Amino acid sequence: MRDSKRVHVVKVDETRPQQVDDDVVIEEPLEIRVNGESVTVTMRTPGDDFDLAVGLLWTEGIIHSRNEIGTIAYCADEEQPELKNIVNVVLVDSKRKLESARRLWSNSSCGLCGKATLDAIHQACRPVTSSLVVPGELLFTLPSRLRQAQANFDRTGGIHAVGLFDAMGSLLILREDIGRHNAVDKVLGASLSGGLPLSETILMVSGRLGFEIAQKAVVAGIPIVASISAASSLAIELANEFSMTAIGFLRGRSMNIYSHPRRINSV
Amino acid sequence: MRDSKRVHVVKVDETRPQQVDDDVVIEEPLEIRVNGESVTVTMRTPGDDFDLAVGLLWTEGIIHSRNEIGTIAYCADEEQPELKNIVNVVLVDSKRKLESARRLWSNSSCGLCGKATLDAIHQACRPVTSSLVVPGELLFTLPSRLRQAQANFDRTGGIHAVGLFDAMGSLLILREDIGRHNAVDKVLGASLSGGLPLSETILMVSGRLGFEIAQKAVVAGIPIVASISAASSLAIELANEFSMTAIGFLRGRSMNIYSHPRRINSV
Repeated sequence: MRDSKRVHVVKVDETRPQQVDDDVVIEEPLEIRVNGESVTVTMRTPGDDFDLAVGLLWTEGIIHSRNEIGTIAYCADEEQPELKNIVNVVLVDSKRKLESARRLWSNSSCGLCGKATLDAIHQACRPVTSSLVVPGELLFTLPSRLRQAQANFDRTGGIHAVGLFDAMGSLLILREDIGRHNAVDKVLGASLSGGLPLSETILMVSGRLGFEIAQKAVVAGIPIVASISAASSLAIELANEFSMTAIGFLRGRSMNIYSHPRRINSV
Repeated sequence: MRDSKRVHVVKVDETRPQQVDDDVVIEEPLEIRVNGESVTVTMRTPGDDFDLAVGLLWTEGIIHSRNEIGTIAYCADEEQPELKNIVNVVLVDSKRKLESARRLWSNSSCGLCGKATLDAIHQACRPVTSSLVVPGELLFTLPSRLRQAQANFDRTGGIHAVGLFDAMGSLLILREDIGRHNAVDKVLGASLSGGLPLSETILMVSGRLGFEIAQKAVVAGIPIVASISAASSLAIELANEFSMTAIGFLRGRSMNIYSHPRRINSV
């Protein structure tokens, strides 16, 4: 995984300014194609690109199961053949066109208002069905487990981590990216490709819990989503409506449960 | 400005779980139209929506000066007339269609690779020309000035602030949003509408300095962009290429200068 890059930097602190080399997080565009047709370009940290493509196609409603996926491959970029910045997902239905499906929730340019967005999602999503209940104590352990597993954060300080945990608090999948939403798509894509059931899992994100993250988790059917940071109004509305437990400010031994607290025991 | 909302929350900490009301940052979609034609939908925190629209149209290359703007107004949303979630910008050239211009850098769905993106921006941007030089000491004061001026952060913990400072370190414009890029567009839109020259200013962002933020600052001709957090590889490349000084990890009395350090004195 190519996630950081050395750059020249002038470091200024109490001592004299120094010219040093330092690691920064890599950000590069990835174009995702379906049956050769361009769907979107996302600015991402290279690595786990196939997971990212599968996750994005799933959470944007373009595919619904791994059985729809035929092959996945990098396309050669004619101008820069050394870059792996185009991924083509060939569906089993390799003739399928995306006219109707290619409109993405998050970047849609049709006439949306909040209600229309939620209406559209309503049609595409089902409420999360899960009987999962976990102790609050277990949740308190997740941020440090995520951090310990996150290899890169300390080197660049610029990368988000997203972890998928099972009901015992074991880390199943960890993915990192400069974009929160990409890290979530990478986790969900890996779980879809691996055939991992998600109805008994917890998604832990290192960044804020906004609408986009909540929407992706609902599509994936994840019952509990937790963030060490804040949650937005729209993320909470969505979680309430689709029966997902949304948790914010999970730090130390405290947290805010914004929706469906029944899944957190001894609360 | 309607930036936060009361929600019910179960707060868990060392004491017994409590049902309380708490403020969360509002996230709602805003559709931006030009001459009645939809350009994009962005998830934003309501407030300063006209600034956001103007800033986005500017930084995406759709308009180039405030003289192109005729009128700006909210459109009634037929389904939810109480919401102000659609802004229409009528250009002086009210017949102008956006076929070629409406493709947005950040969400483009044409066949981009990194080089093509930079090439496209190359055609649309000019290097920042500015003779601004500021003392490093001045930069050290900006994070606390930004924080002091940021009214909302402490209430919701979920909002980004972006400040535009002059060469003496005085705050000219502050805008906040759940999205970093929106907060930058709000600041830039306000400066364009106000006819404020930017060649002697410093942009300070509370979040990471990624490609999108750097690109917007280059379009606006801002010579120094500083973040309290990390900068990405692509943001640094862009800053190097377009003669912008990019600074990361501006905290306490230290910082990393990633490009064009000549603008920072005694360094």
